[in-house]
This record gives sequence, C-alpha cells and structure tokens, in this order.
Amino acid sequence: MTPHASSGPAERHHPDACTVGVDFGTLSGRAVVVRVRDGAELGSAVHDYRHAVIEDRLPLTGVPLPPDWALQHPEDWRDVLRTAVPAAVEAAGIDPARVIGIATDFTACTVLPATAEGIPLALLPAWSDRPHAWPKLWKHHAAQEQADRINALAHDRGEKWISRYGGRISSEWQFAKALQVLEEDPAVYAACARWIEAADWIVWQLTGAESRNTCTAGYKGIHQDGAYPSPDYLGRLHPDFADFPATRLDHPLAPLGSRVGGLSSCAAAWTGLPEGIAVAAGNVDAHVAAPAARAVENGRLLAIMGTSTCHVLNGATLADVPGICGVVEGGIVDGAYGYEAGQSAVGDIFAWWLRQGVPDDYRTEARDTGEDLHQLLTRKAAGQPVGAHGLVALDWMNGNRSTLVDHHLSGVVAGLTLDTRPEDVYLALLESTAYGTRVIVEAFEAGGIPVEEFIVTGGLRKNALLMQIYADVLRRPVSLGTSEQGPALGSAIHAAVAAGAHPDVRTAAAAMGSVQRHAYTPDPGRADAYDALFREYRALHDHFGTGADLLLHRLRRIRNTARTATAG
Amino acid sequence: MTPHASSGPAERHHPDACTVGVDFGTLSGRAVVVRVRDGAELGSAVHDYRHAVIEDRLPLTGVPLPPDWALQHPEDWRDVLRTAVPAAVEAAGIDPARVIGIATDFTACTVLPATAEGIPLALLPAWSDRPHAWPKLWKHHAAQEQADRINALAHDRGEKWISRYGGRISSEWQFAKALQVLEEDPAVYAACARWIEAADWIVWQLTGAESRNTCTAGYKGIHQDGAYPSPDYLGRLHPDFADFPATRLDHPLAPLGSRVGGLSSCAAAWTGLPEGIAVAAGNVDAHVAAPAARAVENGRLLAIMGTSTCHVLNGATLADVPGICGVVEGGIVDGAYGYEAGQSAVGDIFAWWLRQGVPDDYRTEARDTGEDLHQLLTRKAAGQPVGAHGLVALDWMNGNRSTLVDHHLSGVVAGLTLDTRPEDVYLALLESTAYGTRVIVEAFEAGGIPVEEFIVTGGLRKNALLMQIYADVLRRPVSLGTSEQGPALGSAIHAAVAAGAHPDVRTAAAAMGSVQRHAYTPDPGRADAYDALFREYRALHDHFGTGADLLLHRLRRIRNTARTATAG
Repeated sequence: MTPHASSGPAERHHPDACTVGVDFGTLSGRAVVVRVRDGAELGSAVHDYRHAVIEDRLPLTGVPLPPDWALQHPEDWRDVLRTAVPAAVEAAGIDPARVIGIATDFTACTVLPATAEGIPLALLPAWSDRPHAWPKLWKHHAAQEQADRINALAHDRGEKWISRYGGRISSEWQFAKALQVLEEDPAVYAACARWIEAADWIVWQLTGAESRNTCTAGYKGIHQDGAYPSPDYLGRLHPDFADFPATRLDHPLAPLGSRVGGLSSCAAAWTGLPEGIAVAAGNVDAHVAAPAARAVENGRLLAIMGTSTCHVLNGATLADVPGICGVVEGGIVDGAYGYEAGQSAVGDIFAWWLRQGVPDDYRTEARDTGEDLHQLLTRKAAGQPVGAHGLVALDWMNGNRSTLVDHHLSGVVAGLTLDTRPEDVYLALLESTAYGTRVIVEAFEAGGIPVEEFIVTGGLRKNALLMQIYADVLRRPVSLGTSEQGPALGSAIHAAVAAGAHPDVRTAAAAMGSVQRHAYTPDPGRADAYDALFREYRALHDHFGTGADLLLHRLRRIRNTARTATAG
Repeated sequence: MTPHASSGPAERHHPDACTVGVDFGTLSGRAVVVRVRDGAELGSAVHDYRHAVIEDRLPLTGVPLPPDWALQHPEDWRDVLRTAVPAAVEAAGIDPARVIGIATDFTACTVLPATAEGIPLALLPAWSDRPHAWPKLWKHHAAQEQADRINALAHDRGEKWISRYGGRISSEWQFAKALQVLEEDPAVYAACARWIEAADWIVWQLTGAESRNTCTAGYKGIHQDGAYPSPDYLGRLHPDFADFPATRLDHPLAPLGSRVGGLSSCAAAWTGLPEGIAVAAGNVDAHVAAPAARAVENGRLLAIMGTSTCHVLNGATLADVPGICGVVEGGIVDGAYGYEAGQSAVGDIFAWWLRQGVPDDYRTEARDTGEDLHQLLTRKAAGQPVGAHGLVALDWMNGNRSTLVDHHLSGVVAGLTLDTRPEDVYLALLESTAYGTRVIVEAFEAGGIPVEEFIVTGGLRKNALLMQIYADVLRRPVSLGTSEQGPALGSAIHAAVAAGAHPDVRTAAAAMGSVQRHAYTPDPGRADAYDALFREYRALHDHFGTGADLLLHRLRRIRNTARTATAG
C-alpha cells in the first residue's frame, strides 16, 4: 500500500525497539515513546491546541457560530505531530532510529469534510468562512433534530442496525452531523468528497493515503455486518442523502492494529521519525486504552474514568444490550465483539459540586493541611458509615448516556436535611456514579455479556475512596490500569503490532500493558449497606428516567423556553 | 381575681398611656413599650437567656440528656422580666407610671411540671437532678413514640378532636410530653401538681395566680368543645394517665386579651412597673402577632416568616382542614375560629444552602460590594427569568409541618446540570418555600376557609425578591406587617385590651397595628410561568410525600441505622 519500506526484522526485534503512541484529546495531543519489549514508557510530551474548542466564532473570518456548536482546527492536530512527537522522543533520550512504528487515537466522533485528496475544506480559502466546512468536534450538539429523525425512521422501518446502538443513534455521530451539513449548507455538502473521522484523517496525514478503521466506522459510522445503512433508508431522510456512504465514506476497513502504510517523507520530516515505519489504523481514545490495561480478553470491562466515563468490554457473542452505545465486531480487538457504554459525567459532577463553593473554614483547613478541596472533602466524607448522610443522588447532571440514552435528563439529590454538609453531598455524588456504573454492569450481564473483571483507568483511578466505593457498590474487586497515559500507551501497543514486533494486540497487551489486579476488594458489610442504597437509586432512576412524560424533561423544556425568551 | 387595684380611667385614657409587650423566644426575651393611642413603639430591649437551650447536660448537676431533648431554665425567663422590661421602659424615656398593662407571649408548646403553688420542680433541690423535672422546650423531640400512640389510639377510637389537628397530634405538644414524663419518670409525674405552659407560668409569675389561656389550651393542650380528651381514652394510653387533665391541667380558660389579674408587688419590683396594672392572658408568639399586622379579620392569613413559617388565619366557620396544625375557637381572637398551619423550615433552608459555601470569587465580590452572601446570591438570582434555572426543589429539609405533617421527610432538588450555579439553587429554594405556602393556602380554601389577604411579618418580609416570588407564586398581593417586633407589639396590644384602653383586640389592632397593604403584586407573566413550575412541585410533592412506603422515609431509616451503628 505504500511505496516506502517498512522496518526490517532487525529493527523490529531490537531489544530497545520503540513505538510512538499519540493520543488526540479534546484540548491537547499527547505523544509517548514506549519500549515494545516491556511497555516501558520512556518519554512523553503534550501539545495544547492553539484554537482549543471553537464555539463562538470561526478563526480568521470571525463568522459567529450558533449555540451548541463545537469545532476544531485541523492545523492544531498536525501541530501535535510536529511538536509533541519530537519532544517525546527527545524526552525519552532514544535514537529516533529505534522507533519502528507510530499509531494514533482520537476523540470520536470528531469528523470533517475533505477533498478527495484529504484536504480539509476548512483550510481552503473558498470555504473557510463556512461553519459547516470545519471539523465538528465530538461534543458538537447541534444535530439533535437530525438524530431524532434518524432514530424515528430507523424504528419505523425496523432497521436491524438500530439495536446495535442500544436503540438510539447519538446526535454526536457521523450521520447526524453529515445530515446537518447537507440540510443547512448543501454547497459544503456538495464540495465534500470525503466525510472522514479525524481518527482516520490524521493517519492520512501520516501515510499520505486514506484509510478507515473498524472502530470509528462501527461505533460512529453505523457500519454493521459489512454495510452502511441502505440508500433506500437514507433517501427517506433526505433525497440527496441516499448515496452518502457510497460517495463519501466507502473505503475498505482497516482492522485495529493493522499497518495501513508507511510513514511518509513529509510526516517523517514533521515528526523526526524514520520514513517508512509502520503507521497503524486509527482508533478511538477510549477503546485504544483496553490493551494498555490488559483489558482485551472477553469479560474484562475497562472503565476509563475522568470527567466522564467510557466503558469498553469484549464479548464472545453478539447481543443486543439495551441502552449501550454500540457493539462492533472487532471494534476493540480483532476476534471479539466490542461493546461500549458510558456515563456522560463523572469527575465533572464532583467538580461541579466544588464549583458551588465550600465553607470558609473548610478553605482555611485546606490551606493549613495543604490539601486541595477534593482531597479535603474526600477525607471528611471517608469517615462516615455507609448511608449515614441519608442521601441518594441521580448522576445525570450531564444527561444519561447509558443505559437510558437520554441527554435531556438532569440530576436529582434526595434526602437533604438542615444538617447535610458539603462532604455529605460530595460523597452522595461519588456514590451516585458508582450506582450508575452498576446499572451498566447489570445491563451487560442481563443482556448475556458476562463481566468477569472490572478494571479502571484514567485520572479517577487514583481516588482511593471512590475506588473502594466502586468495589463495594459493584460487589466485585476493582483492578487498576497502571499507566499514567492509557490511551497513548494503547496506541503505542497498536503501533507495535502494526510494525510486526508482536503478532497481535492480545500478545502485545500481555507484554506491554499493565494492570494491578484486585487493587480494591469489596467489604461485605459496606456492600450490604450499599445494596440497600442502590435499591433507592434504582427507585429514583426508574421514576425519573423511564416512562412517557418525564418531570425532568418538562423542567428542561421550561428552562429552554425561559432562556430563549430572554435571549430573544 | 386579684387583690390589687387596676389602672383607673384617667390612666387608661391618658394620651401617653403605654403598655409593655414581652415576647419570649427560643434564645432570648424581648420587651417593647408601646403607646396605646397609636401603637408607636417607644423603646425596646432584649435579654439573652443565660442557659439558652439545654440539650446536653442539666445545669449544676451535669446530668446528661438523651438525644432529641431540649430543655430551658425558668430563671432565664424571670430574668427577662427583671432586665429587659425596665431596660425597655428606660429606652422609651417614659414615666413608668404611664404603663397601664403588660402582656406576654411565649414559644409553644413549652411546658413544665410545677407544684400547686407554681414552683417549677426543676428549681426544687429534691428534683433538680431529674431531667423530666425541667421545662421541655417546644423543640424537645423525644416524645415521638408517645405521640404515635396518641394518634393511633385517637384514630382507632374515632376521637372527634383528632380532626381539629389535621389528623395528627405533634410530639411537641402537651400530652405527648406529659405522657413521656409519666412513663419515663413516674416520680416526677407524681410530684407534678400542675402541668403548665410556660406561656401561663410567666403570667403566674406576674400576677401571683394561676391562669390558662385559650390559645395554648386549644392548640397545644387538645382542649376542644369545652373539654380535654376523656379519661377513658387517656386511661388506655396509660392507666395513670386517665386523670391527667382533671388533676394537672384543669382551670377555667382566660380568653385572649382578657385581664387575668393585676401586677403583683413582687413583679412590680422586678419590672419597675406600677403594682396592680393589668396583666393579660398568656399567648403564643405566632398567634399574638396577628393584631400587630391587623390580620385579625376573617380571611386575613398572616405568615410569620423567619427560620420557619407559622400561618395563622381566622375563619367564620369550623372546618376540618386536612394537614393543618390546629383549629381553636377564639384561638387567635375572640369570636372566630383560629386556624394554624406551618412550614418547618424557611429561612433555615436558605441559611443551610449558604452553609455549604460559595465560590471564592463570590466571596471576593461580596467583600467588594459590601453585601452579605444572602444579598449577593439574591442579586445574582434576581436577574434570571422564571424557570431559567431548570430546577424545582422540595422544601422539606426540616420535614413538613403542613399539610403532610411528616417530620421524617427530607429535601429534594431536581433538575441539576453541570451549569447549575449557587444562585440557581438558592433561587429554587426560595421558590420551593413559596410553593409550600401555596399548598397550605390551597388547603385552606379547599377546606372551606377563604384566604382573602396574604400578609407577611417576621424578618423575611424584608427580602424583596422573596416577597415578589410569593406574590407571583400565590397569584395574589402580599401585604406586609410593618412592625420590627410583631409578637411583642401584639402582646402590647393585648395588654391595652386587658387594661381597658381599647374595648377588644380588633379595635386595638386597628389603632395600634400596622400593615402595608399590597406591597407586592403579582406579575401576570411571571405568575403564569410559576404555575407551570408549581405543577412540577406538586408532582414531586405527591410522589415523595404521599403513599404507603416513602423513599424519603426509607432513606431516613437507613441513615438512622447507620448513625446508631457508629454511635454503638
């Protein structure tokens, strides 16, 4: 596929052979250099995107954006290759000739319109003043109307693929975003020769050739059983949408960990890496983390816990699990069905509570002890027996991704009294996210996909109280992915496979990934107490989250009407 | 009834004739000197109780108290007569000879065991180390078990009086507290010749003779249709309780505003007031405030709004209004049925939210603007259109006094999102108390007791945003009682009637009370928006507050079990 030579056996099996993993996040990109023999992380570097998230106005032209828009600048992504990658290599202190491959992972669905050559329309003077020409970041939420129609029509027609997505396609995904372009700016849609995930676009930048990876095509692109949705179905959404996959998506899919090409001379110049080394298929930041925590075997559920939580889990069989985000064959690792679920906010909820403030004397105390406020509230909360605060909360401050798939829900706190303290609410919020995870774990098991081990990676794994709560609420041990940079390490593992240093991702994960097994184990007494509280969470969950006319939906409508009236 | 002469016509109708009103609160007593001609408040003074609320240990002996106990020291009350009354007269700059009467009001049910001479058992060396010998403050909450049995038996037997109390006698009231004494310390019960409200005991101190007032006998003492509960009923609660009213309560009732005696020489020496001036029947702090705000005519609902809210309302007819605290003939003013309802926490809820803290920059801003934090959050909250915060809360952080009569309920906040700010929650809490008031107003009207005017007194009447919210939520104007010390002024009005300066409380209220009519009027647009939010409050209220097995009760049981386990 590429005119360049790849690394030979000598380089591949050199004891100091390394790969580079690059993780493209929402605000920055991170590169890490990893030794393929044992997964040692030798050096890393971060590059902050200059334009961050574009929400108000387009760069240069200043064209204003409507509400709920979120765009990014493709040049920011290329800057990561030009700055973070060489910086990581330098930090590792290695000879760049030791690097035998590179792989990338990206937020998803982050997607852009490009020419047939892969040039983003946003970078062409003819289109740069058109908002729809720009890459839409995953959290661009302005295509809900399109998503609603996609879902309604799919159910009306009994489209088989809809059940693979828990019954609902998100407004964040490829088809909703593309349909929004078509309907709101047909000229941009017409000029768009390729509609491509940033995950695949960045690989195009590295190799000079287009590719499409199994993961984003399946989870975000509705590619199931070898096909996209049918022209007949799509034509009923919009006549000009019927040929959307054939004209703008169609391309053979590259399995995860496969080599899609060699590093181009241009990309070699950007990165300082050897021309021709293996470039792996693109991947999603959550899914790519599984091998980094050795969570690739069936039944190992990996929770990537940060501002929100993403759950990935492999299963031997295909099952329609209601309320999950998606199931894709080979979506996490070849030879298994990869399941994804999620919680829209986790760390964000704890941060939200801190943003409400803390009492003056807490602030003074934190200053005296040198703790940050999270640590202070955690310490104060940790002392009390389970349930002593009398609270239960619904963790829906940013909606519910799984298993209700409803972003118009909102949070609830019940049981407040005049002696409720900040640490009580804080603890109840920690617990609410554990209950939310238990709902997801139970949904997988009820759907026939066993969860045999629960592994956590991401920043929140360092919160010992939270991890113990998860162990107690789930009544199962919590294992920890030990890498500081799970996704980037996961990418480096994929690069090692693409370079031929390991035969497949499972083997590479065993050699390069790391996990601390059963770092936390449930306490039977606390687990019993949490069972009682979880029943109350379930009661609130079902009351507020299911049914035809939901109070929280009505509140949101009242809110939106009130806000719109002011804005007008 | 008294050997002393009362003031003659010359004193009564002197243009500068004054009375003294004394309001005994939870932490202090306040005296005010008022001109009977026009209600001018000439001077006032406050005395803080030295022992405040006794919750942990008995004074002197240090005997420890169980949880939920709350006692007071009778000497603290007498100190108010000795210090605050002369200080108020001095502050008024009047000749004490101009004072023609004195009246008092008290928290209720605050009740004590005394000898036949009115000596509190607590002050006798033989009993002072026995907790049950001490006065039980209104918020002594350790007699719930007795209250539960009182209620269950009353319903079993179809006792007619139970419906006068919204179907439930509170654990705070006379019979529950007395039954607790009998069951837990029969010797104290045996030594108790008189079981008397502090409201009546203080009048005994002023006059030297026992009296019982209509208000506390009716609302707190289950005196209805001329009688206390029957010996047959009481005997089934406890054999020795059958003769409780006959032996320890029975005494002719003094109507409100009646002269029960003349100021004794001893009390004249304490207060510096003329011996023999009129002393009025005792009264309750909430009810006594009605004439101060000219809220004595039928249909004028007075809300005394502070840490909690008490509602008093006169009606022409006797109706069983479900969920109210009580209805007593002449309980507020002679010749009408006086209704009482309440909200267990109002200002306490707003203070609770502030105790959770505010963000750092809010604190800085408040320092710069010189606002206190309530003012700051109020200003920030006031800017937004109704419903824009997307929240609705249940104002049950201290239970629900009316109309659910359930102190095991707790607060709920629904609609929280990651962009919810402290002022949003604060506003939702203000609104929740207005919804709670609307439930009470609607209950009165549904029960056949019209509410023609809504009048607010107490500290919260100064919160303009809150008052506007009440006007909008209730869809009716809000009038304001203008006195800074409504209860003390109300007592002074009763004293003027007892002294013969005015023929009755209605006339005295017209001359001495004051109200700002329709200080706030509803805005139709905001009222419409609040109608929609009130529907959601109602939905939450009914879901969480009614039915057989309530989630909030279960949470409280879980909480109490967890806390007890720790304590053990």
